Amino acid sequence: MPLISTRGEIMPASPIRRLVPLANRAIDRGLKVYRLNIGQPDLPTPPEAFEALRNIDRKVLEYSPSEGLYSLREKLCGYYHRFNIDVDVADIIITSGGSEAVLFAFMACLDPGDEIIMPEPAYANYMAFAISAGAKIITIPSSIETGFALPPIEEFEKLITPRTKGILICNPNNPTGYLYSMKEMLQIRDLVKKHDLFLFSDEVYREFCYTGAPYISAFHLPGIEEQVVLIDSVSKRYNECGIRIGALITKNEALRRNVMKFCQARLSPPLLGQIVAEASIDASQEYMLQTYTEYLERRNFLVDGINRIPGCYSPIPMGAFYTVAKLPVDDADKFCQWCLTDFSFEGATIFMAPASGFYTTPGKGKDEVRMAYVLCKEDLAQALRILEAALKAYPGRTE
Amino acid sequence: MPLISTRGEIMPASPIRRLVPLANRAIDRGLKVYRLNIGQPDLPTPPEAFEALRNIDRKVLEYSPSEGLYSLREKLCGYYHRFNIDVDVADIIITSGGSEAVLFAFMACLDPGDEIIMPEPAYANYMAFAISAGAKIITIPSSIETGFALPPIEEFEKLITPRTKGILICNPNNPTGYLYSMKEMLQIRDLVKKHDLFLFSDEVYREFCYTGAPYISAFHLPGIEEQVVLIDSVSKRYNECGIRIGALITKNEALRRNVMKFCQARLSPPLLGQIVAEASIDASQEYMLQTYTEYLERRNFLVDGINRIPGCYSPIPMGAFYTVAKLPVDDADKFCQWCLTDFSFEGATIFMAPASGFYTTPGKGKDEVRMAYVLCKEDLAQALRILEAALKAYPGRTE
Repeated sequence: MPLISTRGEIMPASPIRRLVPLANRAIDRGLKVYRLNIGQPDLPTPPEAFEALRNIDRKVLEYSPSEGLYSLREKLCGYYHRFNIDVDVADIIITSGGSEAVLFAFMACLDPGDEIIMPEPAYANYMAFAISAGAKIITIPSSIETGFALPPIEEFEKLITPRTKGILICNPNNPTGYLYSMKEMLQIRDLVKKHDLFLFSDEVYREFCYTGAPYISAFHLPGIEEQVVLIDSVSKRYNECGIRIGALITKNEALRRNVMKFCQARLSPPLLGQIVAEASIDASQEYMLQTYTEYLERRNFLVDGINRIPGCYSPIPMGAFYTVAKLPVDDADKFCQWCLTDFSFEGATIFMAPASGFYTTPGKGKDEVRMAYVLCKEDLAQALRILEAALKAYPGRTE
Repeated sequence: MPLISTRGEIMPASPIRRLVPLANRAIDRGLKVYRLNIGQPDLPTPPEAFEALRNIDRKVLEYSPSEGLYSLREKLCGYYHRFNIDVDVADIIITSGGSEAVLFAFMACLDPGDEIIMPEPAYANYMAFAISAGAKIITIPSSIETGFALPPIEEFEKLITPRTKGILICNPNNPTGYLYSMKEMLQIRDLVKKHDLFLFSDEVYREFCYTGAPYISAFHLPGIEEQVVLIDSVSKRYNECGIRIGALITKNEALRRNVMKFCQARLSPPLLGQIVAEASIDASQEYMLQTYTEYLERRNFLVDGINRIPGCYSPIPMGAFYTVAKLPVDDADKFCQWCLTDFSFEGATIFMAPASGFYTTPGKGKDEVRMAYVLCKEDLAQALRILEAALKAYPGRTE
């Protein structure tokens, strides 16, 4: 048998993925499993999306342009203008989910061996896309003690080498829910400008900011307009993760030409998803507000509940729909697994994501988990009761 | 401004892409342009596909599994069984078009610097995906004189190095329409077996074989079951290129595990496309036969027409919906461009793909074009009249 590539071998196997079969076995044993492990919202997709699907009046479901439908890109411009993000139709390239936007950004900006710097904990798949591109992600740990604020900018500067091509941030952050302040964003801007770097900014949770302070996009930062590569997706904001529509947005024309070569190779982004995404931008104010309010209430409820459990601590996340919490356990990987294999409470258990999967620094996040508040409050209440009971029963409890 | 990667710079710019703006300008000047340049079928998508879209009864358009919907994969099994391709549900991984299947096959099988060997002319985007994976495609020219038959197998063997990891074929072939014989397939099998290689077999045009001889899949070849990586797509057979649903199929479990890491990184293939693809497999016999008969008639009509024009020659393609024809011109790139910029006949002109874009050997295909018979016969008739008139008027005519 021929040898398989080593590229796949070095791809990090997410601890969540490893736990999925255990969760399925728990269900097979008759347990109810409360899934706090993934960012799959339970909220409905807007009715405008389904209406658009029902009204499709075409004879052929043909290729769309490689850069995406003009009408969708035009509508997205209007959407971004509402956030004071001043982009043109030409700046927007539609991708197959935010995932493809990250992959193509890396492919087009980074040569094999090039490096980008990113605070951790971070979305694990960035690492997978960097490996796909043969590039390296260098991480700087942020800490739960400071609520996962931006690590000191000098830490970034220390890691800059001749191979450093960019800084990667996710804002609001997955997995921490952290929202970067204007001060932090300006520090990043200065660094990017000084060292002539790209700023990859994943802003897919833009709609979910629970603070009075204004939302800051990388495109709001003056002086680095040509260096910003914005990653976006309609998945989270319209609860339509399955349609696979994202965008790579940059004012750097040379970079767009390069990205377009990768887009042309894969011919086109999904047509039906684009039709749905375009319709979803018309989702009503009520719909958007309902989604927002629901997450805000869940966040308050979940974080409050975690902090009432003895030994547990969660900072208050200001954005997205995740929080990273510290638990009084020897090893969160083991604890999360134990909850699925050895524990139940009133016929149910919980599935959380061990935070170790979001760090590359060994040993980091060992007593942390990520919880996504993608369940209704009643379910969150029961999940919290299960967590409390599990921590009482878990043999590896530390305090 | 930061430097962009060289990876994008070395991606081949397809001569078709270069001509697209010229075609648009011809239209702006009021000309009708007969598009023989791309594989976008004009035939209707099956009614079952639209029916499935109208009947979607979901509240959330959520992520599907990274490997694709079980129900689609199960139905595909039944489809393949009709072609005596004996695969299980577990062997099938759904991808975002055949394109992603090729990319992931390369990513999972090839390390940077690894090589695959492929006959040319060939689908140009294979090269783009190889560059994405940092791998090299080594080509062996096939020739219009032998109807683009498989080059002598000794030519392949001469090119094998310690870095050679696989052979890539497209069968039925894009761009030539060539259909490999059992004898040729067995030669490939022996080579793959002897040198312990992967056989990447792109069979997306399977439905369109215009010969009495049985269709031969790579999976029909005994003894290399674990080495075959089949690339498939529903785009062409159901006229739904825009839904972006393809598949990577392999019985090699270790390889599937590796491919799945790339699948998990991009989360999931398009949900709506999967729903449409699944419904399309139920397309009626009449629908499939109508599509088939239409292409068969068009092929006969087009190839006959080409061969009646003095100085032109097209072999009879036995599959797909393309033919590569030889024209009496100095440079097909120039001629195709000239047709769009300097020529018209009865208010119209033609857009053909210069064959040079399907070769990597310099100078190959210089007097060849690819024509896709994706237009109705009336339009093909007019396109042929335009071609004949253009060849009479073209200053670079050679005979």
